[in-house]
Amino acid sequence: MEKLTESQIAEALAPLPGWSVVNGKLHREYRFADFIHAFGFMATAAIAIEKNNHHPEWFNVWNSVVVDLSTHDAGGITAKDTELARTLEALADKLQ
Amino acid sequence: MEKLTESQIAEALAPLPGWSVVNGKLHREYRFADFIHAFGFMATAAIAIEKNNHHPEWFNVWNSVVVDLSTHDAGGITAKDTELARTLEALADKLQ
Amino acid sequence: MEKLTESQIAEALAPLPGWSVVNGKLHREYRFADFIHAFGFMATAAIAIEKNNHHPEWFNVWNSVVVDLSTHDAGGITAKDTELARTLEALADKLQ
Amino acid sequence: MEKLTESQIAEALAPLPGWSVVNGKLHREYRFADFIHAFGFMATAAIAIEKNNHHPEWFNVWNSVVVDLSTHDAGGITAKDTELARTLEALADKLQ
Repeated sequence: MEKLTESQIAEALAPLPGWSVVNGKLHREYRFADFIHAFGFMATAAIAIEKNNHHPEWFNVWNSVVVDLSTHDAGGITAKDTELARTLEALADKLQ
Repeated sequence: MEKLTESQIAEALAPLPGWSVVNGKLHREYRFADFIHAFGFMATAAIAIEKNNHHPEWFNVWNSVVVDLSTHDAGGITAKDTELARTLEALADKLQ
Repeated sequence: MEKLTESQIAEALAPLPGWSVVNGKLHREYRFADFIHAFGFMATAAIAIEKNNHHPEWFNVWNSVVVDLSTHDAGGITAKDTELARTLEALADKLQ
Repeated sequence: MEKLTESQIAEALAPLPGWSVVNGKLHREYRFADFIHAFGFMATAAIAIEKNNHHPEWFNVWNSVVVDLSTHDAGGITAKDTELARTLEALADKLQ
């Protein structure tokens, strides 16, 4: 799994408007209606995440979820991260 | 908490098209895209359910969730059940 | 994936005391302290279940979880079911 | 809900060995066997958290969960936080 180039990352993020690169990781901050929807998003995503065996750094407080994605073994952002970003975005979109 | 009359139940179910009364309980069968969405619905709903302290009978296999609601202490269907049906319907609607 | 013989099933269930064969499926009824622990068990197990891509039939009401396992494609109980029974038992044991 | 004094906090943390005060919040870092157990802990705790309507700041990556507790309205640590710490500790203890 190789690190993506800047232009590959830019291309992958084009259809993912809320995402950007912060401190070398794919970064997204979600805000939901309340804790039920915020954590429901995480609980739903967790099932998909473990299946693909690529785990986010994510933080929650009440209705807020902050996500940072990178691939430790590759020392940067890889296709695993852009794929996880798409998975998270699709689920968050349903619960927002 | 008193049992609802048949006409009260009919009125409550009017805006909940998939719901009916089966064996004296409010009944609904959901089908989702896959297990991730089906169980994600349950995991999200579980947080709301415990908060309201009124619990469904529910069954899951893969993408299917079957729900039956009644109020044990009242020996039938009460406003707690119609309220829970509305809560479940709103969450299922997002994840379907 | 082939159906297990009766003696293979008996051998697999020997270290799983609460499990039996009911209606041709591996069957277990769990009782937890409350809904939080019962559904917490399910939410934890769900992550492992999807990863292994073999799904239980399971039913919950309040502190009770009832599980039935079989392999649809094989028309009976297979090693996938005895493996899932072990996974569920290990997680339930922690949360009971 | 009033802020606890330093000695009240020390007393509350006495039976909670892994907890300390960091940046004015109750702080705990958990490590589980894997993502299934780490997120299973969070999914179980989430049901209890919403019921008590007091939410943690918590962070997860793979098998690690980091928790920070304070009461925004009181500008510090209150009895709500020490109660939530006890709830989290009891659940984490089961899943570790």
